[in-house]
Amino acid sequence: MKLVRYGAPGRERPGLVDDRGALRDLSAHVDDLAGEVLDPRALARLKTIDPSSLPKVEGDPRLGPCVAGTGKFICVGLNYSDHAAEAGAAVPAEPILFMKATSAICGPNDDLVLPRGSQKTDWEVELGVVIGRTARYVDEAEALDHVAGYCTVHDVSERAYQLEHEGQWTKGKSADTFGPTGPWLVPADAVENPLSLPMWLKLNGEIMQDGSTATMIFKPAFLVSYISRFMSLQPGDIISTGTPPGVGMGKTPPRYLRAGDVVELGIDGLGAQRQTVVAAR
Amino acid sequence: MKLVRYGAPGRERPGLVDDRGALRDLSAHVDDLAGEVLDPRALARLKTIDPSSLPKVEGDPRLGPCVAGTGKFICVGLNYSDHAAEAGAAVPAEPILFMKATSAICGPNDDLVLPRGSQKTDWEVELGVVIGRTARYVDEAEALDHVAGYCTVHDVSERAYQLEHEGQWTKGKSADTFGPTGPWLVPADAVENPLSLPMWLKLNGEIMQDGSTATMIFKPAFLVSYISRFMSLQPGDIISTGTPPGVGMGKTPPRYLRAGDVVELGIDGLGAQRQTVVAAR
Repeated sequence: MKLVRYGAPGRERPGLVDDRGALRDLSAHVDDLAGEVLDPRALARLKTIDPSSLPKVEGDPRLGPCVAGTGKFICVGLNYSDHAAEAGAAVPAEPILFMKATSAICGPNDDLVLPRGSQKTDWEVELGVVIGRTARYVDEAEALDHVAGYCTVHDVSERAYQLEHEGQWTKGKSADTFGPTGPWLVPADAVENPLSLPMWLKLNGEIMQDGSTATMIFKPAFLVSYISRFMSLQPGDIISTGTPPGVGMGKTPPRYLRAGDVVELGIDGLGAQRQTVVAAR
Repeated sequence: MKLVRYGAPGRERPGLVDDRGALRDLSAHVDDLAGEVLDPRALARLKTIDPSSLPKVEGDPRLGPCVAGTGKFICVGLNYSDHAAEAGAAVPAEPILFMKATSAICGPNDDLVLPRGSQKTDWEVELGVVIGRTARYVDEAEALDHVAGYCTVHDVSERAYQLEHEGQWTKGKSADTFGPTGPWLVPADAVENPLSLPMWLKLNGEIMQDGSTATMIFKPAFLVSYISRFMSLQPGDIISTGTPPGVGMGKTPPRYLRAGDVVELGIDGLGAQRQTVVAAR
């Protein structure tokens, strides 16, 4: 099941993409993909709906972020051993956590807006874990019971803002449009093996990242359990689990996004994104 | 005008405290202290209401956080020169920004829950700046037009989680109940000089912090402008602007919170908080 949100920013409606790729409206069954709708039991009920019974959506509407009501957008740094090496950093002994502003969340194909003055905006394809049920001090063995599903996340990063303007990475991770999320929320039980999903990113058609969740250091079950020791997790919260090698900062010489660039990225089974890079208005 | 939210957690109603200290219900005028209600123009309209026309609230209900719909809880690190010295850190050249989880926000007098395993939970009285209007690349001269008002914030911090478990401070700042906010939201035009407000914190009746916003390094107008370069700010977002000296980590020997402790803190004109420290359930 591929759950989506479609329509104008802030006014998205819930939908699903059927087996033939057609967009169908879910509004008769749920108000939005948020809150209690994300509980794994509620998602299981959605799966019993015959997609052909849902109204087809005509045209080609914009897709919004595939989840709503996100209270926290939590990211894991340096969570692929080969990306850590590329960044010149040691493999961390514990997950590095930072937050992106939830106001950075946008649709998977919305324009990617370079902040004013940005010289070092960089790309990172990541596996997003969407929380479906409140998690607080959960054991690793029970952690995935609290997960609604998975999605593609683009953790866009301004490296100068992240690393050259005094402390804490959040400053370089939080600009508007720095968190394209989706296209689809795929319920956890429909993702056969989230630990071996090929993931990729292309800049102007040229492959930049070509990895797999198989090389993730701290896995989703551990991350949900670990994070739930430090803060409670609520339905709609997103954990973005880190990026494989191939970011612009790691290239020789470094390469960053410029207005007019086109970024495409995706994770097998979770769908692809496509952003055009534009300058801030 | 002292705006409050009162009632059970998650079901608070808007109210105000009148000149005689009586709590009155504002539900007939606004749904909540969130979103467009926080626009300075909307707050100015609220000020025209005769408090004596509002129903008195009987009893002594719990106070919730004084603002709702907070999408971002942004904190400024080491923003008092004497606190930076106490922490053994240089005065930063630019504001240090980090995020607290919005799920940490609670009422001003709710129990302060020590996370499981916590040995180093510490206190920080701070001036909170509540955003009232979307701010994006705003100049310092116009920044305060985007501020709804001010409040007392307790930026509770677990120092081991913040500093001894790999990167990024957010890990030690985000536990449930680590963000008591209120009691009052005081509209900006009712705070005569936010740059010279005495602020204080007592542990079990003993004064620990005794400072003033006068020694703040980066002031609210600069902070709103600065942050709006890195992320957009929305109504209900809270900027917690740093703490004066006297935190537990800076004492010799360091002193941290234990179950049974009582913390009281406040800022002149913005009201006081009182928390009982309890162990996590």
